[in-house]
Amino acid sequence: MGSRIVTLTTDFGVIDPFVGIMKGVMLSINPALQCVDLSHQIEPHDILGGALVIHASYSYFPPQTIHLVVVDPGVGSERRPILAICGDYFFLAPDNGVLSTIYEESSPTRVIALSVARYFRREISRTFHGRDIFAPVAAWLSKGVAPLDFGQEIRDYTRFHLPKPDSSGGEIQGEVLYVDRFGNLTTNISGSFLKEGGSLKVEIKSIIIDRLCQFYGEKKEGEIGAIINSWGYLEIFRYGGSAQRFLDARRGDEVRLSFV
Amino acid sequence: MGSRIVTLTTDFGVIDPFVGIMKGVMLSINPALQCVDLSHQIEPHDILGGALVIHASYSYFPPQTIHLVVVDPGVGSERRPILAICGDYFFLAPDNGVLSTIYEESSPTRVIALSVARYFRREISRTFHGRDIFAPVAAWLSKGVAPLDFGQEIRDYTRFHLPKPDSSGGEIQGEVLYVDRFGNLTTNISGSFLKEGGSLKVEIKSIIIDRLCQFYGEKKEGEIGAIINSWGYLEIFRYGGSAQRFLDARRGDEVRLSFV
Amino acid sequence: MGSRIVTLTTDFGVIDPFVGIMKGVMLSINPALQCVDLSHQIEPHDILGGALVIHASYSYFPPQTIHLVVVDPGVGSERRPILAICGDYFFLAPDNGVLSTIYEESSPTRVIALSVARYFRREISRTFHGRDIFAPVAAWLSKGVAPLDFGQEIRDYTRFHLPKPDSSGGEIQGEVLYVDRFGNLTTNISGSFLKEGGSLKVEIKSIIIDRLCQFYGEKKEGEIGAIINSWGYLEIFRYGGSAQRFLDARRGDEVRLSFV
Repeated sequence: MGSRIVTLTTDFGVIDPFVGIMKGVMLSINPALQCVDLSHQIEPHDILGGALVIHASYSYFPPQTIHLVVVDPGVGSERRPILAICGDYFFLAPDNGVLSTIYEESSPTRVIALSVARYFRREISRTFHGRDIFAPVAAWLSKGVAPLDFGQEIRDYTRFHLPKPDSSGGEIQGEVLYVDRFGNLTTNISGSFLKEGGSLKVEIKSIIIDRLCQFYGEKKEGEIGAIINSWGYLEIFRYGGSAQRFLDARRGDEVRLSFV
Repeated sequence: MGSRIVTLTTDFGVIDPFVGIMKGVMLSINPALQCVDLSHQIEPHDILGGALVIHASYSYFPPQTIHLVVVDPGVGSERRPILAICGDYFFLAPDNGVLSTIYEESSPTRVIALSVARYFRREISRTFHGRDIFAPVAAWLSKGVAPLDFGQEIRDYTRFHLPKPDSSGGEIQGEVLYVDRFGNLTTNISGSFLKEGGSLKVEIKSIIIDRLCQFYGEKKEGEIGAIINSWGYLEIFRYGGSAQRFLDARRGDEVRLSFV
Repeated sequence: MGSRIVTLTTDFGVIDPFVGIMKGVMLSINPALQCVDLSHQIEPHDILGGALVIHASYSYFPPQTIHLVVVDPGVGSERRPILAICGDYFFLAPDNGVLSTIYEESSPTRVIALSVARYFRREISRTFHGRDIFAPVAAWLSKGVAPLDFGQEIRDYTRFHLPKPDSSGGEIQGEVLYVDRFGNLTTNISGSFLKEGGSLKVEIKSIIIDRLCQFYGEKKEGEIGAIINSWGYLEIFRYGGSAQRFLDARRGDEVRLSFV
């Protein structure tokens, strides 16, 4: 017995039918499975973007959920398709580091290089392994096929390290990691560094914020504020607007935090 | 026994995984529930936009459907999360007026302020009550928990009144209420004011339309027309194009109707 | 017994709740059916776009799947709503040629003009047959209503012919048929014309490509390449970028292929 739930995180967008095709392949194998879209709007080939989205989301699903992450600039090359078992979850992805955020949180019990063609589609295209490899393997896994039936365990899987804030000086130096639809800027500075109400100074792009808010509405329309967001990280926001546009900010921009 | 169906209307967009996370929370509590997305592209913090979308949609679902509406600029502040029972449906939303269109149609049987923490996620963030309050309450409701188990009835819930057309003069003066993907302009002038084929004059932005169409294709490519749309309201359209772009129109623009 | 799965291909977008409303109508009739979105971002009224998307997708679904295709500029006019049975699948669409790609692949066993009002919503709007005709018929079909119960067979259904490559000269002259989210250009030149590794010359917009790639990553960042894509057609891509933007390309642009 496998899981019924498969989540999908891709850079396929929602204009082309790529995602629907993957669901068709899965439902042809296991009509009982249920797909949940996390995001299909990862910037094309943005492996870090995919890694952040799956990390932000995976743990809200029931144990045994199968998380499919297809951000795959190397499709068709020698990069391996893998199945990683981490904590209570299964992850299917190309072995290009897109699961690094997951590995960081809980060392994988096992990573398997998918190689047993019986569980792939008969013909494997050079450009769409989401359809030809990942979707069918997800469906077979959801039907209870054992992980090691898909291939052999590997230990040399690819991972990168996320930029960590530097707190070696008197202050904490971090950066913007994720920009959301509201233009809110999630930094890589964990809320565990901070105490609400404490005196602090946040600096981003020459703007200084002198206090942590408890909710967005504490600020007036158009003001810039800082808050611990729903993922537990320091976030810069603009009430009733977009901090991203106001500050012309992007991933990688420096954020400095000091206590007064 | 509750409903299996939960609809979602939010301003969360489809780039970030917020909506998928809410679904994960719900499926963790009730794996049998089924989510239907209405729209996640309500303009950020556009309470009226959310109110129009849920009003246009709710009645097409089976009785007992749970409608979740999360357009929530006041998240984390004192604004209450509520459950409203109106007609055959359940509505979960922040108490910021986003259900006004629903209240207008059928006075709620009961509005309950959600307060019983047992049905929330253990930790409540300041910024994402969709995940921490609304999603778990929807799931528990779908499992048959009784409405009054979630909190106490209130009577001072928030509501606003939609702009109504003014027919006090010889003509009807209304406005654009909603602009759809095709650039069609839905007005607040109900079709009940109108008779197809009757002689009339519609004026918007100095353009005059002298007849009501029965279908879009009556007009030639590029022409502006008026029609009673699928929601029963007067709509301004441009055949084969966008009336919104052609007229540079937006919500609130005046529309005048007179009978000749 | 009908199928449980209904796919949706429309030009309704994902901002307005049109698609969610169609799902509500279907679930009200058959709560057990399962919807899969293929695309709702067909360009408004782009019948060829809809035809290409459904053709690219339909065969990945289990037999008996019901494919709903609503790109319907003639809604409300005399154009007929139809049910076509082709191969193992059902197709519901306006009779405006949007199923031409399907007819081309396998001549329909039967095409039926939907006319039996009992299977429609009680009131039929002039502008939203997706909700009032196609959705309820799909749901009743999924519950096992026999195709001929929905109306009478017709033979004069609308179809157009896709532009075919011209290979009458020494070279093959085709065109760009579809531009995807990555800016990849799918042509109408079938992979069956080509052999990987063989010496060839592809010309598009004065750019010459002298070799067929086996995977995207063979090219360097920013280079233009050609490949047989996942649909089996010649595709022009730009590695790590958008060929569409780089070449300012669009559907209909000439592509010439010769063997050296």
